[in-house]
Amino acid sequence: MNNERKENLNKLIDLVKDIDFTMMTTIDDDGSLRSRPMSTQKISEDGVMWFFTGYESGKSHEIKNDSHVNLSYSKPSDNSFVSVSGRATLSKDRAKIEELWSPELKAWFPGGKDDPNIGLIRVDIEKAEYWDSPNSAVTHLIGF
Amino acid sequence: MNNERKENLNKLIDLVKDIDFTMMTTIDDDGSLRSRPMSTQKISEDGVMWFFTGYESGKSHEIKNDSHVNLSYSKPSDNSFVSVSGRATLSKDRAKIEELWSPELKAWFPGGKDDPNIGLIRVDIEKAEYWDSPNSAVTHLIGF
Ligand SMILES: Cc1cc2nc3c(=O)[nH]c(=O)nc-3n(C[C@H](O)[C@H](O)[C@H](O)COP(=O)(O)O)c2cc1C
Repeated sequence: MNNERKENLNKLIDLVKDIDFTMMTTIDDDGSLRSRPMSTQKISEDGVMWFFTGYESGKSHEIKNDSHVNLSYSKPSDNSFVSVSGRATLSKDRAKIEELWSPELKAWFPGGKDDPNIGLIRVDIEKAEYWDSPNSAVTHLIGF
Repeated sequence: MNNERKENLNKLIDLVKDIDFTMMTTIDDDGSLRSRPMSTQKISEDGVMWFFTGYESGKSHEIKNDSHVNLSYSKPSDNSFVSVSGRATLSKDRAKIEELWSPELKAWFPGGKDDPNIGLIRVDIEKAEYWDSPNSAVTHLIGF
């Protein structure tokens, strides 16, 4: 990975690290766009994001049909807004589940990390943009 | 419009009225999903939302290619998250521009309401869903 991409990924990690929830948008069977709140578990320095999901779930079904997703992060109190475009894949990687699991996740996965339906969504970042002042123009970060 | 839809639209208006900015997601030429912060100007009781936009702009281009959009509203301090799926159309309706214009919009439209490039995005709501507690399941509001 070149240095510029590395710096930009670090900037992205910095922008979203204090924003607990993102809205993940996917494409439904009928072409409509749906979003739902999700907790970001990890953004790694190679541009991969991880989320827990029910392995069989509405969004899993949507991602299998069309892997394009958007993650939007908003923190109006800091005038901070971020858009991440990427490709999502479903995973049941046991080692990754163990690595990323934390007890707070029981709110959404009462069966814990051994729930047979627990899964991960891996998002490979393709583009990212952000806004950091109330009337700012967009800053392209990755993939432009 | 039947009574249930009317009640649900009022509930939606109530949920988003205190959230100043939404993230509007559109579909780019290459199929990727992009979002950007936008100020909701109006949600009318017949299920139509209005936004100001540059008439020639990235999102206008995207909407002309594929009119599906998602509006996501987040207010983490109230545990409130809303997803609206709809169809967008561009407009230069003079009367509507006059009706919806307010001076704060100068932050994004320094030329004011007479800027030749000013336009409106009209979104006809097709589906809406919300979450109102940290571990709540989704509540389907409109179109399910
Ligand atoms: C807080 C905030 C609110 C914004 N509201 C609007 C808006 O109501 N209309 C608009 O066209 N752009 C608005 N913008 C700018 C857009 O996010 C975006 O940068 C611009 O519209 C160009 O996007 P596009 O190239 O995808 O069309 C806002 C930006 C911020 C930071």
